Amino acid sequence: MIVYGDARSGNCYKIQLVASMLEIEHRWVHVDILDGGTQTRAFLSKNPNGKIPVVELASGTCLWESNAILYYFAQGTRLWPADPLQQARVLQWMFFEQYSHEPFIAVARFIAKFLGLPEQRQDEYAAKQSGGHKALRVMEHQLAQTPYIGGDGLTIADVALYAYTHVADEGGFDLASYGAIRRWLARFATEPGYVAMQR
Amino acid sequence: MIVYGDARSGNCYKIQLVASMLEIEHRWVHVDILDGGTQTRAFLSKNPNGKIPVVELASGTCLWESNAILYYFAQGTRLWPADPLQQARVLQWMFFEQYSHEPFIAVARFIAKFLGLPEQRQDEYAAKQSGGHKALRVMEHQLAQTPYIGGDGLTIADVALYAYTHVADEGGFDLASYGAIRRWLARFATEPGYVAMQR
Repeated sequence: MIVYGDARSGNCYKIQLVASMLEIEHRWVHVDILDGGTQTRAFLSKNPNGKIPVVELASGTCLWESNAILYYFAQGTRLWPADPLQQARVLQWMFFEQYSHEPFIAVARFIAKFLGLPEQRQDEYAAKQSGGHKALRVMEHQLAQTPYIGGDGLTIADVALYAYTHVADEGGFDLASYGAIRRWLARFATEPGYVAMQR
Repeated sequence: MIVYGDARSGNCYKIQLVASMLEIEHRWVHVDILDGGTQTRAFLSKNPNGKIPVVELASGTCLWESNAILYYFAQGTRLWPADPLQQARVLQWMFFEQYSHEPFIAVARFIAKFLGLPEQRQDEYAAKQSGGHKALRVMEHQLAQTPYIGGDGLTIADVALYAYTHVADEGGFDLASYGAIRRWLARFATEPGYVAMQR
């Protein structure tokens, strides 16, 4: 199995995390989004949407969208609950991550860390801050009530949200006032199989 | 079971569609996003993210994120495949819908249809067009190969993507050049239990 990705991307780091936590053997192929690596004809044949990560299975079939890949790997493991309502709750937080969290926190980080906060994107960077803090408040509200984002147990929803939350500072988000999030981040980093992000 | 939503919203229409297709009894409670109905204390206690749709189950538990609700309703039905890789493929397209499709096509439609294309949002409206067409090209590429977006059978990924694609014209997207999408839209409208959107 081959994973195409860039280890500095949170969406790709999710795959590194779940593969390490579940001891899934794979080969990592680096694809650099900044030099057009996701827009080549060869890459677009794997994911016509031109985004990383992509997983190429032994059969040659490709699967894309980081959270769909997490779902696939987690089936039958401790990271996926057995109860359908709990499963839907995990997916609820993963859709929240992609719609209400990543477009603010990950994009602000990308503008600052990868692009060096160029002048023509400073307004966009500033505009990302309120949406990012709104997402963090929603997470804080949940994590003040339950140890993990989906409830009592660690799931792939925690993996999905950990990826960009733990580097939110690189997008200008100070987590000092989010005590429950900080305790959850610290707890997550002690889970078996945890690996740090390459930064 | 209670569904909180606005029938003109594609994300809420998804729930109407799946409930009709699967004959799920429910009570619909109208929530108007334009008059602040999603930001009241009572509503935020159901979804701290302040978005519709929300489903309140008989137990009082609330579930939010339209695509997570689709997942919950579809378990054990014809709209959810049995194979884990096929399941992940369905989720791949549902995450695509929320990240690469809805933020362009649904938001352009909202600006035009709900807000009346006010002058201060015309730049944003124009900027949504290229991302929306990119999403449509990715869908066209898939639907030229398979009758449904996830492969050979109808799934909740089709429900998720039908909702805003079939009203894309209201966001300024002309589907004339997307033949496979238009055939898929026509086929979808003949599925048992199909209901039209209230527009």
